[in-house]
Amino acid sequence: MKRKRLRDLGMGIGSYSCGQANSITDIKGVKVGHQTLYYEKNGETVRTGVTAILPHEGNMFREKVFAASHVINGFGKTAGTIQIEELGVLESPIMLTNTLSVGDVMKGTVQYLMEECPEIGDTTGTVNVFVGECNDGYLNDIRGLNVSPDDAREAIEKAHSGYIEEGCVGAGTGMLCLGYKGGVGTSSREHQFNEDLFTVGALVVTNFGRRTDLRFPVEKEREERETPDGSIMIIIATDAPMNERQLKRLAKRASFGLSRTGSYAAHGSGDIVLAFSTAHKVPHQPSEDNTLTFSFIKEDGEMISMLFEMAVDCVEEAIWNALAKAETTSGRNGREVEAIPLEVLTALRK
Amino acid sequence: MKRKRLRDLGMGIGSYSCGQANSITDIKGVKVGHQTLYYEKNGETVRTGVTAILPHEGNMFREKVFAASHVINGFGKTAGTIQIEELGVLESPIMLTNTLSVGDVMKGTVQYLMEECPEIGDTTGTVNVFVGECNDGYLNDIRGLNVSPDDAREAIEKAHSGYIEEGCVGAGTGMLCLGYKGGVGTSSREHQFNEDLFTVGALVVTNFGRRTDLRFPVEKEREERETPDGSIMIIIATDAPMNERQLKRLAKRASFGLSRTGSYAAHGSGDIVLAFSTAHKVPHQPSEDNTLTFSFIKEDGEMISMLFEMAVDCVEEAIWNALAKAETTSGRNGREVEAIPLEVLTALRK
Amino acid sequence: MKRKRLRDLGMGIGSYSCGQANSITDIKGVKVGHQTLYYEKNGETVRTGVTAILPHEGNMFREKVFAASHVINGFGKTAGTIQIEELGVLESPIMLTNTLSVGDVMKGTVQYLMEECPEIGDTTGTVNVFVGECNDGYLNDIRGLNVSPDDAREAIEKAHSGYIEEGCVGAGTGMLCLGYKGGVGTSSREHQFNEDLFTVGALVVTNFGRRTDLRFPVEKEREERETPDGSIMIIIATDAPMNERQLKRLAKRASFGLSRTGSYAAHGSGDIVLAFSTAHKVPHQPSEDNTLTFSFIKEDGEMISMLFEMAVDCVEEAIWNALAKAETTSGRNGREVEAIPLEVLTALRK
Amino acid sequence: MKRKRLRDLGMGIGSYSCGQANSITDIKGVKVGHQTLYYEKNGETVRTGVTAILPHEGNMFREKVFAASHVINGFGKTAGTIQIEELGVLESPIMLTNTLSVGDVMKGTVQYLMEECPEIGDTTGTVNVFVGECNDGYLNDIRGLNVSPDDAREAIEKAHSGYIEEGCVGAGTGMLCLGYKGGVGTSSREHQFNEDLFTVGALVVTNFGRRTDLRFPVEKEREERETPDGSIMIIIATDAPMNERQLKRLAKRASFGLSRTGSYAAHGSGDIVLAFSTAHKVPHQPSEDNTLTFSFIKEDGEMISMLFEMAVDCVEEAIWNALAKAETTSGRNGREVEAIPLEVLTALRK
Repeated sequence: MKRKRLRDLGMGIGSYSCGQANSITDIKGVKVGHQTLYYEKNGETVRTGVTAILPHEGNMFREKVFAASHVINGFGKTAGTIQIEELGVLESPIMLTNTLSVGDVMKGTVQYLMEECPEIGDTTGTVNVFVGECNDGYLNDIRGLNVSPDDAREAIEKAHSGYIEEGCVGAGTGMLCLGYKGGVGTSSREHQFNEDLFTVGALVVTNFGRRTDLRFPVEKEREERETPDGSIMIIIATDAPMNERQLKRLAKRASFGLSRTGSYAAHGSGDIVLAFSTAHKVPHQPSEDNTLTFSFIKEDGEMISMLFEMAVDCVEEAIWNALAKAETTSGRNGREVEAIPLEVLTALRK
Repeated sequence: MKRKRLRDLGMGIGSYSCGQANSITDIKGVKVGHQTLYYEKNGETVRTGVTAILPHEGNMFREKVFAASHVINGFGKTAGTIQIEELGVLESPIMLTNTLSVGDVMKGTVQYLMEECPEIGDTTGTVNVFVGECNDGYLNDIRGLNVSPDDAREAIEKAHSGYIEEGCVGAGTGMLCLGYKGGVGTSSREHQFNEDLFTVGALVVTNFGRRTDLRFPVEKEREERETPDGSIMIIIATDAPMNERQLKRLAKRASFGLSRTGSYAAHGSGDIVLAFSTAHKVPHQPSEDNTLTFSFIKEDGEMISMLFEMAVDCVEEAIWNALAKAETTSGRNGREVEAIPLEVLTALRK
Repeated sequence: MKRKRLRDLGMGIGSYSCGQANSITDIKGVKVGHQTLYYEKNGETVRTGVTAILPHEGNMFREKVFAASHVINGFGKTAGTIQIEELGVLESPIMLTNTLSVGDVMKGTVQYLMEECPEIGDTTGTVNVFVGECNDGYLNDIRGLNVSPDDAREAIEKAHSGYIEEGCVGAGTGMLCLGYKGGVGTSSREHQFNEDLFTVGALVVTNFGRRTDLRFPVEKEREERETPDGSIMIIIATDAPMNERQLKRLAKRASFGLSRTGSYAAHGSGDIVLAFSTAHKVPHQPSEDNTLTFSFIKEDGEMISMLFEMAVDCVEEAIWNALAKAETTSGRNGREVEAIPLEVLTALRK
Repeated sequence: MKRKRLRDLGMGIGSYSCGQANSITDIKGVKVGHQTLYYEKNGETVRTGVTAILPHEGNMFREKVFAASHVINGFGKTAGTIQIEELGVLESPIMLTNTLSVGDVMKGTVQYLMEECPEIGDTTGTVNVFVGECNDGYLNDIRGLNVSPDDAREAIEKAHSGYIEEGCVGAGTGMLCLGYKGGVGTSSREHQFNEDLFTVGALVVTNFGRRTDLRFPVEKEREERETPDGSIMIIIATDAPMNERQLKRLAKRASFGLSRTGSYAAHGSGDIVLAFSTAHKVPHQPSEDNTLTFSFIKEDGEMISMLFEMAVDCVEEAIWNALAKAETTSGRNGREVEAIPLEVLTALRK
């Protein structure tokens, strides 16, 4: 049976409208690229990859965007959050991969950015790269370190706007979700606030949960956990002009969307959120002025709460999309992980 | 119609068993006391109070318990978290009241503890008091500062174990929830881990949400928000031997239970969690030894994840209990807030 | 011998110029008021008080200022930081007092603000009050809870700009410092950044350290600690347009100034910093627009580092001023704490 | 003139005794290894390397140590802190290198640990690696990415106890300090607490500050900053049984030692601290019991404050040792950075 997104199954989350592609790429300028590694090699099974999210179409180092991270549960190896927290800006593509390949993906991304910006490490400082990860070692030969720096670059260079692939692609190739096959999912929401149409989008790489954790599970008996505790990487983008503190508040709402699918952030999860706004570019080399001037949304009324709710709905629907689009996948040690039967999903909203 | 707890309506959350009273007081030694202020005075309407949670039956200053706090959303005036975060222990009863009465409740609690411990501020240091709050100003004349230091003491002295009152009592007297009347709710879970029976309990004071936020709302249309953004105070207790870091992890799971009732932590919410373990007492004046020895649960396997899940379930059910037990209440400016019709609750799980 | 400020002893810290009064009040609009309680009552000795720092001359609730707090060591009972961290603004005077009087000072400040703003707790939400503290129980009958809500209001109403009293006044009345009598101290720095003259000021209430901790102590032998571990409250103000994140970075530099006087933030210290900028007012009720527009200093070059250094120098000199201006004080239990001999101070820079 | 450590110049910091080697390796089991890259290649000048600190002599993944990190200023790319903060343990060697080589060093360390532990990524989860960095791009061709994964492994394998090399070695090869040549420095303190001799040691890689920042500078005029804002990596080890929270408190004291050399944590600094205790091993696969039992130092009295002070003194002296031992070094673009004249150092304490 052909895999479908949640909305194509006649379901949807919340009361806001989706953007055109119901994707994080509905935020103008945001692009997503996948490098999928799916092959057998010397008797080992490779089911992994890299997903790159580009915050805008320009030079990411010279024009930074406001950003903030949030750790829901920190059993994870995500790199690059310290500088984002200190300075409130993102200056690289957002890279997602498997846990043990963070080093290679970091290297490839640094190389890409050094080529784009010959001044890095020469006439100006260095560059901070964000790399998130989940552990795909149940299906993937993660010990093989099969992701190369070039794979990171490929993911960046393949990035595009519009509709993007979901399910078993890029960093999601070998990932799980709620006892079924998981992977990449995305969703978006938009709302007209007076004269402004603001959009919020989420992209997730899921790797968490057991079947019995499904919020209204079809099987009620307590199941033995046979797969490792899992994780989720959650990227939230918006074109609403939010500053780094407001983005941190937005990032914290991700756990509310995650919760609604059944997760409770098990011990072994690396559940990490990164949120950014495309509304403003922060120049690496500002003008001579002492100050920079920006507009940010006011926080006195309904608007920011509505943006929070839009983010919660996006994150939830992105997870369902990852489940709904992922396909049954075989992996190492003769393992196979089943795609969620679409009737199980539809039964959630009978 | 007589108000009933969720379980008495034939519903329940999750797959774990409840403790005997399905209450935070199922953790041995934990006591809860309410001081309810419900009267008219000089044309003003008082609907407020104080709830005290005592972590154990002994001297709370001389024998501290491990504790940790977590801020889900910090639009709130909770006091006392800085020292708990630094030292990892709680040395006072946990006091809950209305937002503007934090000062009076702090004073009353300091007075109570000074009487219990003549050494405080004399031969030893001072004492740290935890006071949480929600804004009951929709129904209550909060500007009247009607809670006195003596009311705080009353709440402490009335504290008892076993079944406790829920709904419109103590700090919950004037609070709201999901567009209906809210208040105090509690729930517990227990599970046998090899030779150990561990219990987790939660007590909440709810004051958040609109009717349309109810997770599967009976009314689907978007409603104008007519009450202020709201808050929730969440107290989690356990007898499992968890250290301050593990308790912080437990506290962070509260947002997963909160989310499942429909909250997304709106902008104007002070959503604060405090978690403590009764398993060990930390003496204010230790022995001559250089070290203290404690056992804590190991974190390599299922056990801590199960405790997380128990906490999530408790928090969710405590919120439903607050709703289910609260009664229609009139308040200032001729306002009235309706109790949730029990058939709305039962419809959630039809 | 008449007590003198550090500069009047021919000494000074760092290479930047001081503002006109070498005081936190050199930031235009900032006012400081002290309510000093120094008397005997029923055989008990009262040596305590309240110090209020007003961030600007207007209505503090309706026009908030950007702010951030930082906990150097959290063995303390400061209230009000949670909301400042969440929202990035301060909406009350900054109140400093003794540890056990936080509740009373909070109440008095809430009352003051409710009178100024009848809408608080009625047609709008509640108000968040910042109250910091140190333990003056060595000299003061801290158990007597001698500070009343009215004392808090008195401190606010006495606040003025220009030269302010230092040493044994307000919250500093009973405090110690480095084994000598301490109290309130202040200092400021200014620097011309292109067309902008930016000023940074600090006010401290000291209560930390032993004589042997003095950075270049006159007595070298290790001394028995006979006074409790101590604390410091550090308030930093600036007219440079810094946002909440930049102010948090500024606040973190306070420990560098503190360190240089000899502190290492002993276990029992509540060392808390609050920083705010007067450059912008954030309205409680903004206009109809979706956004607010502000200018903030850019962070690409020297400027912010220089502001950091100015803050470090201010904090250090404010501490020396507290020591230099405090006078020998008798207190409870027949205790007396000596003022630092001015020649000890001058010997530091022989 | 032969370079000497601070103590060999007749100077020392604080009042505690040093350990035998005045080195972080005075903590039993701790080893340090340097891989130094110092050569010309294709017209580029390589002045960089890797320093590995091994927390104990056993299997670091299977037997973890309690640990905590602290960010003084986060303009840096350190990886691995998220999991340490969540779980309170370190399970890898501590790796230090240049900013752009974090990815390669992470990969090499992952490879090393996978060889040591075939279960990683197969029958158990993955491994978390800590990699810290400073920017040596003033002297080193940092864009060349000249550090390989094998260099990381070399540093680990060369690690030894006893006296270790300081100055221009390992990660310190190309680093600066206070306007002079910096690099690696170390120091230790020990004290008898009743029956227990506890040792605290620090190792730093310095890369911060201008000559005018030297706490009592020999040149008083304000200097143009010609080198980039700099950083410092600070590793603190102890054999005192401290838990993760206590270690975080210890780590926070590093800024007090750093401050005393003249730093104020300039904007562009990545000043990161990692502290660990060798007193206990936390097994990756615990026994069948529900709990683990450990002793930790009590926090009611002098002991922990003394350990704080020992850490402050160690960090300060380690920085002076890095300066004192580093030698004049030439680097890329014909640059040369002078070693601090030893008479400048000795003049600090004339």
